Amino acid sequence: MGTVAVAGMAPQVKAAETTAASKDVTRKLARYVVAAKYEDLPAAVRKEAQRTLLNWAGCSIGGSRHETVDIAISALSPFAGPGQATVLGRKEKLDVLHASLMNGISSHIFDYDDTHLRTIIHPAGPVASAILALAEYRPVSGREFLNALVLGAEVECRIGNAVWPNHYDIGWHITGTAGVFGSAAAVGKLLQLNEQQMVWALGLAASQPVGLREMFGTMTKSFSPGRAAQNGFTAALMASKNYTSSDQGIEASRGWANVLSTAHNYSEITEKLGQTYEISVNTYKPFACGVVIHPTLDACIQLRNQYKLISGQIERVELKVHPLVLELTGKKTPQTGLEGKFSVYYAAAVALMQGAAGERQFSDNLAKDAAVVALRDRVMTTVDPAIGPEQVRVIVTLKDGRKLEKYIDNAIGSVKNPMSDAALEAKFADLAQGVIPAAQARKVMDLSWGVEKLANAADVAKAAAA
Amino acid sequence: MGTVAVAGMAPQVKAAETTAASKDVTRKLARYVVAAKYEDLPAAVRKEAQRTLLNWAGCSIGGSRHETVDIAISALSPFAGPGQATVLGRKEKLDVLHASLMNGISSHIFDYDDTHLRTIIHPAGPVASAILALAEYRPVSGREFLNALVLGAEVECRIGNAVWPNHYDIGWHITGTAGVFGSAAAVGKLLQLNEQQMVWALGLAASQPVGLREMFGTMTKSFSPGRAAQNGFTAALMASKNYTSSDQGIEASRGWANVLSTAHNYSEITEKLGQTYEISVNTYKPFACGVVIHPTLDACIQLRNQYKLISGQIERVELKVHPLVLELTGKKTPQTGLEGKFSVYYAAAVALMQGAAGERQFSDNLAKDAAVVALRDRVMTTVDPAIGPEQVRVIVTLKDGRKLEKYIDNAIGSVKNPMSDAALEAKFADLAQGVIPAAQARKVMDLSWGVEKLANAADVAKAAAA
Repeated sequence: MGTVAVAGMAPQVKAAETTAASKDVTRKLARYVVAAKYEDLPAAVRKEAQRTLLNWAGCSIGGSRHETVDIAISALSPFAGPGQATVLGRKEKLDVLHASLMNGISSHIFDYDDTHLRTIIHPAGPVASAILALAEYRPVSGREFLNALVLGAEVECRIGNAVWPNHYDIGWHITGTAGVFGSAAAVGKLLQLNEQQMVWALGLAASQPVGLREMFGTMTKSFSPGRAAQNGFTAALMASKNYTSSDQGIEASRGWANVLSTAHNYSEITEKLGQTYEISVNTYKPFACGVVIHPTLDACIQLRNQYKLISGQIERVELKVHPLVLELTGKKTPQTGLEGKFSVYYAAAVALMQGAAGERQFSDNLAKDAAVVALRDRVMTTVDPAIGPEQVRVIVTLKDGRKLEKYIDNAIGSVKNPMSDAALEAKFADLAQGVIPAAQARKVMDLSWGVEKLANAADVAKAAAA
Repeated sequence: MGTVAVAGMAPQVKAAETTAASKDVTRKLARYVVAAKYEDLPAAVRKEAQRTLLNWAGCSIGGSRHETVDIAISALSPFAGPGQATVLGRKEKLDVLHASLMNGISSHIFDYDDTHLRTIIHPAGPVASAILALAEYRPVSGREFLNALVLGAEVECRIGNAVWPNHYDIGWHITGTAGVFGSAAAVGKLLQLNEQQMVWALGLAASQPVGLREMFGTMTKSFSPGRAAQNGFTAALMASKNYTSSDQGIEASRGWANVLSTAHNYSEITEKLGQTYEISVNTYKPFACGVVIHPTLDACIQLRNQYKLISGQIERVELKVHPLVLELTGKKTPQTGLEGKFSVYYAAAVALMQGAAGERQFSDNLAKDAAVVALRDRVMTTVDPAIGPEQVRVIVTLKDGRKLEKYIDNAIGSVKNPMSDAALEAKFADLAQGVIPAAQARKVMDLSWGVEKLANAADVAKAAAA
């Protein structure tokens, strides 16, 4: 208002509005989600959402037969409601809340799901698991579905951006703590919550964070995205019936951001809403292990394919790597497939031999295979401060004396060098193999690419049942 | 070992054990819970557990018809499983997980439930709501039930003690964050988890804290004990099928205590297990409002009864109170019953007029009643630093000039001046009135007192159905 005097109530009202605008983080976010339309989504955003859906479905199908899911279903199904929704890759149908939990768990089991690199949130698990289950209970057009997927990812990643890295450094598993907001927003959008109800849904979400990093390496890690999907879904359902919560669940002095983080930047949540889309920078892992080894795997596979290498030719392999590589994946003699994911030595060897590094390259059998072990023991590493986290230099010395070299600047799967649609399909097919027939996998992929044309997005889930 | 040398392995083993003892907080607690027997409970502890059960059942029945419960049931019952367990005070039966949620919610609605004063944890909500539902699904003898109730309260209050007050000061609703451990431990005990499974159950509990203090004043406050019951129940079920979690969910560097608190004292968790019982210091509210007004209410009711006061006699009322009283309950002109709970003026007036301060004394009608308002406006307060939080001095000046005075040293309901069994029964009857018939209320009370004699504790729940 500057110094201009205005008669009557106007100045007071104006001042109150200004204060509210800078304070009402939760309300501003809710207002955006309630108003956002499919028609406003840029084509590139819609395309990335299709890729996110396809990658998530592949991961969920791929993880669905793991004992982690067997146990969760066996423990909880005696208490589950009507068979409303599919557990992807399996025969069981569960109520929508439990189906959300199971699909979220299976999507994360191989640590092969999508990654919002800035926050390490895996956006699809909490969101897609919830809204796809909802679509089986109450039809959701493919366009509405895609819009909700974009909005859910937007909400969780913006909240993640606002507290990164402090929140993660404290020890929270951010996919489960921010993810619950994504699920609540996406389900709430499809339930057509009004602004106040959406505010309450976010408040109920704030009250139910899931996951500590301490649980990494146990089945409880995969629980995080699943339970976040279920909790957010619950929050939206309760809010839809006017179960009240705080109006400032995120930003209050005792709200989520202050209680669960030591710092926050609310402009990450409230600025440029509808102008930028976090799903645009979503990435997909081409390899079934932590991203720090991806440059090495990319280089090894390229060298193998370019020179048609066979392991008997190789004298030794030198890797010049970023320091984090040895810190996180420096295990020299892994004994199991899971340990192999934490060994750049093993990973390089198996990638050179098999030209791939999917889940089946990290099997217990391969980890003990004599030929793999022999090559693994001839992999050397040097830390090079000039090498960035998405880079590597690999030098393969052959027994005939030749030296083959490959430098990777941006590993495949990074934001600057994304996986192609064809590579995403190959990953999907690899994950689905042994779970559902190839023709069925093809159908799930086609439905994912064409989700916007579906009268009911539930078709994707139904096609993915065993 | 002192300086004594011992041959062979013994010294090393001993040293390892000592280290483990100071580190393995989660395991030590789990080991205790797995081994603890009903037969070892002192009689006074068993008696207090009966009182805890009776008070909890009364609160759950009393809150069961509130719109908060109506909404929660209406939102979630389409997704609930088989009708395995009773929602106390209502006709609906839900699966055990949802029944735990609903009973935990209703037990907290009037803020009238039990209080572990050192931590402000409401111990029964998360624990009794879960194990009573379990008993309807899978018979649990009254003795096993009582032992599990004691152990659940022990676990949640010890964990609360370890992080108090820092954890609460940050903004966590401790009943929901510590309560989930209580539920997991109690259900796990009844599911006969082994030590490793109990460790995992606590790890899964650590991953699912519920509740922020920001939600106080909304329906989401009552959600905390209910969801804690449900989450802990889920944790125990999953652990019983060997869903793995961290072995150090509480004490790891990124475990619950470090992530959710700024300080902790693990000896509160690991010392004197089986020698002291936190349920022994459980308290029950005689009045349906925050404890800071309880001394005033105690004094006013005693004065009324002693002098057979009627409001027309009273010229004015002076209260000499602890500073917190005005800070928390200083509202001078409350317009609703709920606001009346935050007004020492209103509360004193209604207690002098009606000789009680149960839930019905905090109705919207009474808050607007002309006679109550007239007396309320003649209540004065003075803060007196010599008055402790459990004390008050009340001086009633009558129109005939007489001054009547009452000093309270330990308010009724405090640890030093506990409610009598008869007073607990009167409170129960008052809460149950209008929900279930008086004879039925009598039966639930009798079953609660006699729970140890029951072949199946589920009888308590069945008797409390509408």
